[in-house]
Amino acid sequence: MKQTYVEKVFSKKCGRDYSAGDMVMAPVDGAMIHDITGPLAINVFREMGGKQVFDPEKVIMLFDHQIPADSIPAAKNHVMMRDFAKEQGIFNYDIKEGVCHQVVPEKGRARPGDIIVGGDSHTCAYGALGAFSTGIGSTDMGFVLKFGALYFKIPESIRLEIEGKFPRRTGAKDLILNLAGDIGADGATYKALEFYGGTVSDMDISGRMTCANMAIEMGAKAGIVPPDAKTWDYLSGRADVTPFEMTGDEDAGYAEVRHYDVSGLAPKVAVPHNVDNVVDVTEVAGRKVDQVFIGSCTNGRFEDFAEAAEVLGDGKFSDDLRVIIVPASKEEYLKVLRAGLVEKFVEAGALVEAPCCGPCMGGAFGLLAPGEVSLSTSNRNFRGRQGSTEAGVYLCSPATAAASAMTGVITDPREV
Amino acid sequence: MKQTYVEKVFSKKCGRDYSAGDMVMAPVDGAMIHDITGPLAINVFREMGGKQVFDPEKVIMLFDHQIPADSIPAAKNHVMMRDFAKEQGIFNYDIKEGVCHQVVPEKGRARPGDIIVGGDSHTCAYGALGAFSTGIGSTDMGFVLKFGALYFKIPESIRLEIEGKFPRRTGAKDLILNLAGDIGADGATYKALEFYGGTVSDMDISGRMTCANMAIEMGAKAGIVPPDAKTWDYLSGRADVTPFEMTGDEDAGYAEVRHYDVSGLAPKVAVPHNVDNVVDVTEVAGRKVDQVFIGSCTNGRFEDFAEAAEVLGDGKFSDDLRVIIVPASKEEYLKVLRAGLVEKFVEAGALVEAPCCGPCMGGAFGLLAPGEVSLSTSNRNFRGRQGSTEAGVYLCSPATAAASAMTGVITDPREV
Repeated sequence: MKQTYVEKVFSKKCGRDYSAGDMVMAPVDGAMIHDITGPLAINVFREMGGKQVFDPEKVIMLFDHQIPADSIPAAKNHVMMRDFAKEQGIFNYDIKEGVCHQVVPEKGRARPGDIIVGGDSHTCAYGALGAFSTGIGSTDMGFVLKFGALYFKIPESIRLEIEGKFPRRTGAKDLILNLAGDIGADGATYKALEFYGGTVSDMDISGRMTCANMAIEMGAKAGIVPPDAKTWDYLSGRADVTPFEMTGDEDAGYAEVRHYDVSGLAPKVAVPHNVDNVVDVTEVAGRKVDQVFIGSCTNGRFEDFAEAAEVLGDGKFSDDLRVIIVPASKEEYLKVLRAGLVEKFVEAGALVEAPCCGPCMGGAFGLLAPGEVSLSTSNRNFRGRQGSTEAGVYLCSPATAAASAMTGVITDPREV
Repeated sequence: MKQTYVEKVFSKKCGRDYSAGDMVMAPVDGAMIHDITGPLAINVFREMGGKQVFDPEKVIMLFDHQIPADSIPAAKNHVMMRDFAKEQGIFNYDIKEGVCHQVVPEKGRARPGDIIVGGDSHTCAYGALGAFSTGIGSTDMGFVLKFGALYFKIPESIRLEIEGKFPRRTGAKDLILNLAGDIGADGATYKALEFYGGTVSDMDISGRMTCANMAIEMGAKAGIVPPDAKTWDYLSGRADVTPFEMTGDEDAGYAEVRHYDVSGLAPKVAVPHNVDNVVDVTEVAGRKVDQVFIGSCTNGRFEDFAEAAEVLGDGKFSDDLRVIIVPASKEEYLKVLRAGLVEKFVEAGALVEAPCCGPCMGGAFGLLAPGEVSLSTSNRNFRGRQGSTEAGVYLCSPATAAASAMTGVITDPREV
């Protein structure tokens, strides 16, 4: 029986062969809750009569959106969740580790073949390590906390074959923005994106995280890179795993197979107010920017900051805008710090904040006034996403963000 | 004519001899506005028909309380102030430099003999460099922006003679808390505190800033250390100054002379909810703490973090609380970073945030839920200051904060 990667994950997990379209009650290997959606899920859990979560070791709790608490209600939510963690024996990473979608992988809590759900739409990020992971609502999460399983309609997959070598100063973010533009914001609705091809094989885990993370921006339930040596290397020392081979069969029943060649790829920018409103950077070059954000679960890793630093060189950031840099986790922060990049960025005029979601969703800090423009390495640019509904958010790579931060206007990083 | 230091400042500035109690219209050498009070002052300036500020080079603008903008209204305030700065030719440090009371001195904008007003109660901090500086309301500031001068009733001074060597792990913060406890929250109302004695001579500029900063907590208009070699050394390369000698005459008409000996001083803690509710740390040792904040204009300098790091040694912060570290300025941040302390603190479990006011006033982040307890190196512990009115804020030195952050309860730093 030929199967997509997703069909194999569900078949293996549920003990018999399944195909896309089948409904299954699948056990979950991990359930992630954070400070925004966690309290809602806990309330649902209690309303359902929940007394003890299905398995405290499979519940992953951390705070990343509103930290350190940016309001009294946020502080109360944190207290409520800390109390729940203590009561249930759940380990709580609290505010100390960083953004959920970076922390879950780096703590070894997302492994190839796992089914993981999270109370956050970008939970699809763990597909970078070959997990089927997806964001669910808080009602579903309440159910999962109690029963440790959830009904899934196994999604069809779109097979993406990516080949070619990235041109200078383009990379995974430009690829995924290009895909979003091409496939469209609803082009993969309730499907999974499976990533294959030489470009993906060559891509480091950080780049794969960038790609998997944004699958939801095309409506996809998941974005998955089947495991290879890089996957197992990454997990070594993080999770207790024995490498195995599993990949989607080429001739499985894919909803669609799409071929891309990145060798001619230009730096891409998603223009307000939709993620699939994607153009080459040259089309928007010169537009004034008020704030640059480099960070988030999409682009908040050492590799992203190294890319930004390479573009920055010995230069300075423009005095005409704010540059906010937020590593996605404590681990990434320390890598960035030890490489001398925190010092470099601060000297160049940036603020470097402690690991958290930062300005990505316009919650705790970095909000925009009406008329302001943000250039952001994060994953969404919906109207009002980073503050005023009259502000605009452009999405781009760390290289494009750094180049633009130096000039004060959207700038092609190939020209710096 | 025998004069206090304050009388000498006003006499020199206004061109003839004045005494405490005299009313004078004095020109100001600097007018500092930040993101909270600045918009109010600008509105008053405009309502008074103000077109051009008295001297753009004497207006000091920066944003430190709500940065990066933590709400859309905050973002709008920033835009409004940026526009005003451009219109008026005022240099705006924006969000890039740090807390006003650290940035003004380090940019050389507070000098011995200066009269400086600021739209912030802790403007008295610049007295550490021998300036008469004081916080004023936004209506007064609107007037100052227009006319560059303000009516002052020259305050009487209390002469503080401080002698002795600080015992291990006590310092300037313990001294000023002790003074607040002794003098009381209204014990120096509309007076100036003038600091003299061997302890003050031996004290570095950072410690003097800690002391001057908290003069307002006793109701004082100003807290002043007359200039000495350390003052001129600090200003060298920062301001265009020619050293001069000026000090209060010992037999001037002081309202009071108080003598202190620090050689028997214990680490001090101000207990909720008043700054003058001061006890020895031993009296409150063992009380559970939820959050430790090391930073603020009171204790956010390299010397403060070095003190905390010395106590921390190779230890870790407790997992049972949050530790938030915020250097007071970019300059201090870089010193702390280059000394390896950012890495040390993060490894030990703290969050290190970019320079700003931080949790001090419960604005942007680090707010407390009802029932929570904060131990803070900042300057105020009024009810609700750091979030919920049902939370409690204890004030202490960086050493006491670090020791407590390691144990999770208020801890005597001499015992670590």
